[in-house]
Formats: sequence, C-alpha cells, structure tokens
Amino acid sequence: MSISAFDHPYLSGLLGDEETGTFFEASADIAAMLSFERALALSEGQAGVIPADAAARIAEVAGTFKPDIAALRAGVSRDGVVVADLVKQLRAAVSGEDAAFVHKGATSQDVIDTSLMLRLSGVLTLFSARLDTLLARFAALDEAHGSRPLMGHTRMQAAIPITVSDRIRSWAAPLARHRARLDALLEAGLPLQFGGAAGTLDALGNTAGEVRSNLARELKLNDVAQWQSQRDRLVEICDLFALISGSLGKFGQDIALLAEMGGEIKLAGGGGSSAMAHKQNPVAAEVLVSLARFNAVQLSGMHQSMVHEQERSGAAWTLEWMLLPQMAVASGASLRLGIDLAGKILSLGRD
Amino acid sequence: MSISAFDHPYLSGLLGDEETGTFFEASADIAAMLSFERALALSEGQAGVIPADAAARIAEVAGTFKPDIAALRAGVSRDGVVVADLVKQLRAAVSGEDAAFVHKGATSQDVIDTSLMLRLSGVLTLFSARLDTLLARFAALDEAHGSRPLMGHTRMQAAIPITVSDRIRSWAAPLARHRARLDALLEAGLPLQFGGAAGTLDALGNTAGEVRSNLARELKLNDVAQWQSQRDRLVEICDLFALISGSLGKFGQDIALLAEMGGEIKLAGGGGSSAMAHKQNPVAAEVLVSLARFNAVQLSGMHQSMVHEQERSGAAWTLEWMLLPQMAVASGASLRLGIDLAGKILSLGRD
Amino acid sequence: MSISAFDHPYLSGLLGDEETGTFFEASADIAAMLSFERALALSEGQAGVIPADAAARIAEVAGTFKPDIAALRAGVSRDGVVVADLVKQLRAAVSGEDAAFVHKGATSQDVIDTSLMLRLSGVLTLFSARLDTLLARFAALDEAHGSRPLMGHTRMQAAIPITVSDRIRSWAAPLARHRARLDALLEAGLPLQFGGAAGTLDALGNTAGEVRSNLARELKLNDVAQWQSQRDRLVEICDLFALISGSLGKFGQDIALLAEMGGEIKLAGGGGSSAMAHKQNPVAAEVLVSLARFNAVQLSGMHQSMVHEQERSGAAWTLEWMLLPQMAVASGASLRLGIDLAGKILSLGRD
Amino acid sequence: MSISAFDHPYLSGLLGDEETGTFFEASADIAAMLSFERALALSEGQAGVIPADAAARIAEVAGTFKPDIAALRAGVSRDGVVVADLVKQLRAAVSGEDAAFVHKGATSQDVIDTSLMLRLSGVLTLFSARLDTLLARFAALDEAHGSRPLMGHTRMQAAIPITVSDRIRSWAAPLARHRARLDALLEAGLPLQFGGAAGTLDALGNTAGEVRSNLARELKLNDVAQWQSQRDRLVEICDLFALISGSLGKFGQDIALLAEMGGEIKLAGGGGSSAMAHKQNPVAAEVLVSLARFNAVQLSGMHQSMVHEQERSGAAWTLEWMLLPQMAVASGASLRLGIDLAGKILSLGRD
Repeated sequence: MSISAFDHPYLSGLLGDEETGTFFEASADIAAMLSFERALALSEGQAGVIPADAAARIAEVAGTFKPDIAALRAGVSRDGVVVADLVKQLRAAVSGEDAAFVHKGATSQDVIDTSLMLRLSGVLTLFSARLDTLLARFAALDEAHGSRPLMGHTRMQAAIPITVSDRIRSWAAPLARHRARLDALLEAGLPLQFGGAAGTLDALGNTAGEVRSNLARELKLNDVAQWQSQRDRLVEICDLFALISGSLGKFGQDIALLAEMGGEIKLAGGGGSSAMAHKQNPVAAEVLVSLARFNAVQLSGMHQSMVHEQERSGAAWTLEWMLLPQMAVASGASLRLGIDLAGKILSLGRD
Repeated sequence: MSISAFDHPYLSGLLGDEETGTFFEASADIAAMLSFERALALSEGQAGVIPADAAARIAEVAGTFKPDIAALRAGVSRDGVVVADLVKQLRAAVSGEDAAFVHKGATSQDVIDTSLMLRLSGVLTLFSARLDTLLARFAALDEAHGSRPLMGHTRMQAAIPITVSDRIRSWAAPLARHRARLDALLEAGLPLQFGGAAGTLDALGNTAGEVRSNLARELKLNDVAQWQSQRDRLVEICDLFALISGSLGKFGQDIALLAEMGGEIKLAGGGGSSAMAHKQNPVAAEVLVSLARFNAVQLSGMHQSMVHEQERSGAAWTLEWMLLPQMAVASGASLRLGIDLAGKILSLGRD
Repeated sequence: MSISAFDHPYLSGLLGDEETGTFFEASADIAAMLSFERALALSEGQAGVIPADAAARIAEVAGTFKPDIAALRAGVSRDGVVVADLVKQLRAAVSGEDAAFVHKGATSQDVIDTSLMLRLSGVLTLFSARLDTLLARFAALDEAHGSRPLMGHTRMQAAIPITVSDRIRSWAAPLARHRARLDALLEAGLPLQFGGAAGTLDALGNTAGEVRSNLARELKLNDVAQWQSQRDRLVEICDLFALISGSLGKFGQDIALLAEMGGEIKLAGGGGSSAMAHKQNPVAAEVLVSLARFNAVQLSGMHQSMVHEQERSGAAWTLEWMLLPQMAVASGASLRLGIDLAGKILSLGRD
Repeated sequence: MSISAFDHPYLSGLLGDEETGTFFEASADIAAMLSFERALALSEGQAGVIPADAAARIAEVAGTFKPDIAALRAGVSRDGVVVADLVKQLRAAVSGEDAAFVHKGATSQDVIDTSLMLRLSGVLTLFSARLDTLLARFAALDEAHGSRPLMGHTRMQAAIPITVSDRIRSWAAPLARHRARLDALLEAGLPLQFGGAAGTLDALGNTAGEVRSNLARELKLNDVAQWQSQRDRLVEICDLFALISGSLGKFGQDIALLAEMGGEIKLAGGGGSSAMAHKQNPVAAEVLVSLARFNAVQLSGMHQSMVHEQERSGAAWTLEWMLLPQMAVASGASLRLGIDLAGKILSLGRD
C-alpha cells in the first residue's frame, strides 16, 4: 500500500527507514504479542494459576504460531482491537482443554501495550547507537575543519565570524543530550502493561502480584502497576522522538542555507533535477526539516491522546496507533539521513 | 508494510478505506503522472512545439508504460522526487530521437502536483457521493425515530428533553454544508500545475500559453497560472477533509455517549472484548472521534507547509506528501464508518 | 497583563494589532452581548412575546448599561460562562416587573456566539480592506521593479533567472484569492446563533421563528437554524485566518532569504542589535514566518473543538475561546506587518 | 487587553492563574533582565573585565531602575527584541563613563533567555508544590472513599466493578511521576544563557569562562555552554507542562463523565446556567479537558521552533514567545482547577 510515505514503494526510498520500520511490521507486532501470551502462560504456570502442562503446551504453540492475517483484519474491523481474534486463533491452535488457559486474566490492552514496549526497547537501543555514529561523524568533521572561520548569522543576517567548531557544537550538543535522555530511559527499563479486564487483575486473585512479577522478568520489562489510561511514559518517549528530529531539523536547515549561500560548504552528491541538469539539490538537508516539522505536528496528537476516558479509551488509544509508529520511523529516518548528510560534507568554512 | 495504520495488514480493517486509498496507490500516481506526460506531448504536438510524430510516439508509450519501481525508489532517494528517474525511464522506452521530446519544458512539480489534482478530483467526487448516502441514512433515521423524545445535554449534564430530530439535525446539517463546499470545489474545477523549471515556462517561449491551455483541456483541469509555491488551493481541500472528519467526530462522540449512558439507543453489532464476553463496544463511534482528532492534528502540518521558500521548497513540499494522503484516507474512513454506524442504529430516543 | 504576546506591554509593539484587537476587547464583547439582549427584547416585543413596554425598557437600559466587571469575572469562574451573571446584572438594572423579560428564551451560547459573529463581521471587513492595500503595494512594486531579473531558486538552490514580476505574483496571487474568499463569506453574511436552552427555542413556542427572524434583521446577521454544536462555519473562518497568515509567511520567508543572500533587495529600516551596531535585521520578515507557524499550530485546536458533545460541549467551546481571538489578531498582525514590509522594499532584483 | 483568555478581564477568572501569571508579567521579565545586567556587571568587575567602580555603579542602578515601557514597546517594534532599547535606557541612567560598561560582551538573547530561565525556576517550584497539594487531596479522597465500588468502564461501556481506589490511582500515579520529573529538572538546575553576539563570547577574550562562571553563581543557574540555537532544554520543560495538563485532562474527563452518568459522584458547587436554573455544570472538570487540549496544540509550535536557523533564528525564537507563557499558565490553571475540583468531590463510588 502507499498511503504513508514511510511505507510507499518509492517515497520510502527517501522518507522511510527500514531498520526502524522492522519494529512496526505487523509480523513484529504479532511476534511480540505471541511472546506475551507465551510468557503469560509460563508465568501463570510457575504461579500455579494454570496447570504446568497447559503452560508448556501454550508456550510451545505460541512460540511458532502463524495467525491468519485476513481473519485478524476482520477481527480488528469488528472489535477495534486485534487481540480477541488472535487469542481465538491461538486457542484453536492449542486445542483441547489447554485452550481455555490461553490469555488467562489478561486483556487486549495488556497484549498490545506490552508488545509496543518490547519493540520500543529495540527502537531506543537503535537510536542510541545511531546517535553515537552521528556524534562520531561530527567529531571527525570538527577535527578536520573545526578551526576554519565561518560567518556567523543571527536573524538571517551576517553577524561576526565564528569557527566551524562553534557551528558543529550547536548541532552535536543537543544530540549528546538526547542520547543521555535515551540511555536514561533504557536504564530505567520500559514498563510491562498487565492489568486484566479493567486494570485490577481481578481474575487472578491473590496470585496477581506473583504472575505480574514473573511476567515482567520473562519479558525483561519493568514490573509496575498497570498504566492502561496513564499514557505519560509513552508520550514521553514520543517527546524524545520529536526532540531528536527537531534538533536534526536545525542541522538540515543550516546545511540547506550553507548550500544556498555557497562558499562555505562542499557537499558530495546531491539530488538531480528533471528540468535543470546543472543543479545539485541538498535533498537530505531539506528532508531533515520536513521530518522535524512532521514530528512536531504528530506530537500534538500524542498529547491529545492523554485524555483517556475512564479505565480505557478506545478513541484515544486508537489515535496513538495512527501516530506513534510514524513518529518513530520519522525519527529513525532523521537519524539515517543525518548520518548520511554528515558523511557527505567534504568541507566546511573558509580557507 | 505496516507503519501506517491506514496501510496496515490488520489495522486497516478498522482504519483504512480501500476506495479512497486507491487514489493514493503508487500505481495510481504513476498512471496520473504518465497521463500528464502523454497529454503534455499531445499538447506540445498540437502547438507545434514538438514534432507530431514524436507526440504520437510519446503518447502511445506513456499510455502503457510500466516503470521499474526499484529504480524509481532509488531515484527518489537520490533526487528527492520521483520524476527525474521516471522521465529517464520513459525516454528510454520511447527511445530514438523522439526521446528528447519527453517532458519538454516541464518540471517535476508540474508532474507531481498535477497528478495529485487529477486524483483529488476523484476523491472529492467519491466523498460527495458518500455524503449523499450518509445524509439519506440520517433522513431515514429521522423519519423512523425523529419525533421521539431524547434528553438534551449541555456541558455534559442533562438539560431538557429535545427530539431525536433535533439531534439528527445537528449531525446532518454540517454534512450538507460540507457537500455544498465539495460541490463548489468540483464545479470550479481543480487546477492544472504547469510552470517549468522555475515557474516561467521559459523553455516554451511564446507557445507557453497555448501549450498550457491544451494541456488543461486534455486533463480536464482548470487552465490557471502556475502555483508552485502557492499552496492555498491544496490546503483548502485539506481544510475540508478535516471539517468532514471533525463533524463526523461529533456524531461518533454522541453515539459513544448514548451507548455509555444507555436507554436511548439500540445499536446492531458492536465489537467484542478479549476479556469480557458480555461487552458490545461502540467501536465505529470511538474511531470517528480518533479520526477527527487525527485530521485536526495533520492539518496543522499542511498549514505549516504554506511557508514555501522562493520558487519551490523541497522541505515544505515533502511535508505535504507525508500528510495529505493520510488526511484524505482518514476522511474517507470517517465517511465509511459514519455510513456504517448510521446503518447500525436500530432505534434512537425514548418510547 | 502580559501572558499573551499580543496583549503584552512591549511585545505587542511587534506582535499585536490594535485595530484587530479592538474587536476582542472585553468592552467590545460586552457591547455586542448587550446589543444581542437589546435586539432580543425588541424582537420579542414585536412578536408579542413580551410586553412592548418591557421591550422598550430593556432596550433602553441595555443600550447604555455598564456591567460590574469583577462580578462578571467571579461569574465566569463559577458558571464557566459570562452570561448568567451579565443577565443577572442587567435584570437588576432594568428592575421591576420588566426584569423578568430580559434574555427570555435565550441561552448563554446564543449571546456569546452571536457576539462573536457580530465582531467577526468587522474583522473580515477590516482584513478585506488590508488585503486591498497590500495588493496595491505589490502592484506598485511590480510596476517599479517587475521587469528586473531575479535569480529563481528551487529547493534552496539557484535555478534559472526569473523576473521580479514572477516572484511578486507568487506573493500576490494567493492574497487575491484570500480576499475573494473573505468577500464571499461577507456576502453570504455571518449567521445568527439563537437556539435557547437546548437548541429548540422551546420557551418561545410557535413564535420562535418570528422572533429569530426579527432578531437576525435587527443584528444584520443571517437567519439560520441554531448551530450550537455545529462549529464548521466558525472553523472555516479560522481556516481562512491561517491561509492568510500562511501566505504572508511565504512572503516573509522570501524577504528574509533575499536579505540574507544580499544583492537583490534593498530594504529601508530594519531592526537594531544590542551587540552589533552594523546589523539591520529584517524583523518584520521573520515575524511573518513566526505568525504563519503560530496560526498553523492554533488551527489544529480549532478543528479539535469540532468534537462537541451532545447539545453543547463546555470543553470544546472553552477551547475555542483560547484560540480564536489570537488567530484573528495574528492574521491581523500579519497583514499589518506585510503592508509595512512591502512598503519598505526600496528595490528588488538586479540591474 | 483581552486577546488572551488567560489575561482577559473576566475569562481569566476561569482560565487564568494569577500565581503562575506573575512570572510572566512584563514587570517580572524586566526585573529578571535587570538582575542579569546587574549580575553581569558584578561578574565582569570580579574578573577585572570592567572597572570595579563601574560594576558597583551599574549594579546599583540596575537594582532599582524603572524603564520607560512605551520606549521599550517602540524598541521591540523596531528591533524585534526588547534588549537594545532597555540597555540604551539603562546606560542613560548609569550615565557618565560607566555607561559604556553596561551589557558588555552580552547579546539580547543572553538577557532574554536567562530571564526566562530565572522565572521558569519559580514556575517549576510552584508546580511541584501544587502537585504535592493535589496528591494529598487524592490521598484523602482515597482514604475516605477508596474501598467503595465504582463501575469500571472500558471503551465507554460498563465493564466490571473496580474500587474508587483503582480510579484514584489512575489520576494520582502520573501526577506523582510528573512531580518526580519536575524535581529532577530543579535538582539539575536550569541553565544560564551567555554567549555574546554570535555565541562565542568573543568580546571577553580569555576571561570569558571566568565571567560566565561568576554570572552563573550570581544568578544561581547552571554554568553551561551557550545554547542560543539549541532549544531542547526549553522544549523539554514545555513537554512537561503538556504532560501535566494532559494527565489532569484525563481527571477532568472522568469527573465530567461521572457527573453526566450520575449515581457515583457527589460534587459541591458547580456552575449555573443562564437558561436552566436546575443545572449544576461540572465546569472545572470540562475546563481541565480544554486546557489539556490547548497545551497539546501549543506544544506542536514549541517543537516547530526547534528548527532554528544558524546562530539565532528570529522567526523561531519569536514563535516561542507566543507559546511558552501561555503553556505555563495553562498548566498552572490546570493544577489550580485540579486542586479545586478534587476538593469539591463529596463522595465517589457506590454505597
């Protein structure tokens, strides 16, 4: 399909990011949801909530199960969430008496939010590594050209000369802070979501705490109280996505302006024009600005989605699904293009 | 791919809209871009700008050409636009001396913006028809239940009784206005974009006016001066997309509240829960709210993209590509779900 | 107070617009609300709904009444709207038996929304005149410098030469369309809001139609069905505010870039720097960009506010109050600065 | 003036927050800017950059100076910033040879951004205390009513019973996290901005480090490298403002829904209606939703403003001035109304 530029057969060449996109493939979501069901069965087996045999059987089936995607699609269309149909299919695959123990005590949101957190761990780790790479490129540029003069501009007017180092510092310093922010999130660990039908784990009685603790350990997530209608930790991650693409937008804007004014930058490559053979467009620089503005727009919707009605808002939750994956990929694409663009700077500043 | 909920293997069952999505398939874009190149060759042949034989040859090839998508993707990644590579491929397919006459005097933006306008004509026509269908459903509901009492609520508190007709009018009246707005746009006609490298049609000399007029006639678009950096007509269409989904969000919110409070609505169907077999969730109603908020968010980015630098802004233009198709599909999905939901209302009001 | 830059003791020198701001003074709102109560009394007197004497007495008092602002403030804090307290005060001023006939059959929203529409008529008329002035300045610039060459830029790279006329056309053409949009709205007339407690004018029985028609005539507004929860006509006006400031943002961005690159523009004046005496900052040009982005942001909230619950949403309506006046003033300031900046262009293009 | 609801003569009764607003009064900004100039003179005196006598004289004058506001307004209108005129006035007040040492080595942005950080320290401290108060109210509600049953709702449908404690936890837990986020910011300290004309402190030569360190100590801010075009720390504070109002929007939405459905909440007070004497509107609850959506909208603009051109962007910086103070006051008003509303809950849940 082609509705999103991030998924588009040809626009994704510019705007997509395959590595980040991997975490938002339907297959990645399904795998993470099944790993939740598997870990849940094991956790409940350990706690004696379900028979050990059932736990083993469910874990085995969930480990390899391939759901019928068309049926999932029909399920989402009907139920508003994928989990009811996925669980139905998984129960059919488990079959027999063990089937009834699949998904015991859990609700759709447990599965979907936990799947998201599992995948966001991967995204944050990837971004941390990319920030390292980009910071290394800036350090190399600084070493090569840092002492050269560059005209400083304030309010879009030539001001006084600065050095290339001064300018590079304005690009790199916020990225170093973003990496520290990412690392703090990763160090604290992302939270498990596990609350059952209305957030009270009512179906598990006094084994609820033990099951949740087992489950968090199995999935390597933080064992915290359910947060079904408390979206701040998720929104905070999106704030960071927008901070990253925002800072890279500033880098892109600066490169586009340097390229436009000429004389202080040499870039390798650059995009061709269908009408003017002589042009070398600073495409990556421009697109960094586009992605920054895109994420600044989307973030507004993530914050709107904090107004969750009661125990769970279908409206607010569904809104997240339309926004968050694109924000992650837009940030990923920003990092990809930023690394690429930094690598194409042949020289900066004046002799 | 699965980054956008509108394209997603299973989420699109709820959030997508196949009919609207058709206009944003890569294949639809390619077909429209090739119809531009075909019509351009014919128009330039008629004006004597290119040889009649070349015009015929290009028109013939463009009518059936299937581009190499992987090469287009690499082209976008390099050039920031698809047209340079598409024209290169089309020239290779035309081959011989005629190849040089392909795309003569045009630029990427002519092709891409005109392709978009051609497809938006289809989208607006589709939405006008859907609004008709939805208005007919509201009229039928009004006829069946209009005279029954319904508790009026202001500021989320019971106020005084109104009738079901009163409430239905608040849903239908803005949609009738939106249809009138759509029809006015369709009647005025959508604009051709044709300006050449920097908007001056410099390569066509004094045949420029004639070629543009021919081209508009061939493509059934309005013959207007180029609007490369003047995005108001495009943004105005997005304003309308958001007005449509916004009004449907109010309908969805009202149905969700009626369903929550009970006693005044009977709905057929409703989504199941993975945890609670007894629940019937008003999924379509909630999702109408999500889509309204989604488009309200995206619209901000379309208005940001009006700040176009100079003759053409890569940054602002690329931002549009990330936003507009999703806005159209979100509005389309709103209309689809609105029609569906109106059809599921078995009764409204009290006996 | 100083929370808004538009009202701020010194920032308003740059960002405010006194003439537009006049329509959003508390005193202008109070005057318009009292003119509603006055016209309502007269309309109900004419229709025989209230005694002619009472109508005359109310009209007389409402024509000169000065409310206690501190009490209004306390009223808004308590009731969420100003009207309950204003009506209470007005009744006390009318005094005697006539007092009971004040505000008969009306509700808060009738007063507040109608007051807004009365004032927006003035705003649209002002903006139409300003667009005229600005278009005249562009025409004069075109006459003076239009034939001179200017380097065309696409994707922030020099492309091919165009003329100054070409560039001016890209600034003026959308503004001419905006004026046409404004004039169409003014010609159609802005709508009266009159619905009573829950939109049904229940308290007026079968004189409701006559009273509403009288009221519309008295206030020179359109006689239309109440639109308490149908905000599309209001949001459409805000769309236009953002279109205007968006197009002026493109003008500002272009001037800032011309000033930065030098050689093709001469500007009179320009802002000083506290650190660098030699600088002449293109302040108005930059601020046009700021205002364009500001309104693009606010517009998102106006579209969010379309999701109105039931007969009237306090939450959505209150949100409008925080957004719309600032959008109007931001557009007004854009027009003011645009006119100013166009007047400061001493030359454009190359010799 | 009355353009902003936060400053408005009567709307501010509902939407304003006097205590937070204090930090954004023009007088507070002027006082903080003068404290910067005072501390700068002292710091430069200590470092031997300016004569000790001049430092003492400037510190003395800046400590009591009252600028001419009308002249400041004209200055902002001309220069785009207030500092050039403020410094001119301050120099005139200092008079004599010492006047030349005022503002030495500093630029407008140093003064304005540092003034903002000084005042944001106060805002964050205030919000931390208010969160404490609100958490205490929730704890008291929990103690009084926590064990009572409440119907849990998911997707706007009755699900299964929960307890009042469960619901209160969903309101309080994110607020406790926000307080921890605030406290972490306060503990780390807010950053001094000091960079001079183009960020290089060029006018101070090798005393730059010492002066900056002195200045940070004088002002009790963090001694960090200039961040003129690196807005992430500022935007991060706004993210937190929106997180706070977002979580309170969820609380407000829940109270409005409880009030609408009835039977599970008793509220003291409530707003009156101009049309229906029997109504008690949950005004504060609704306004919490409005404020959450307002800040979600504004935040988008703060993230847009990260795309700063070169050493300083007038356009992006000016955009911040229009957004940040309102975001702070909206969050402050949210906290004020949240505390108020929590205090009006007489009972929650069923017997």
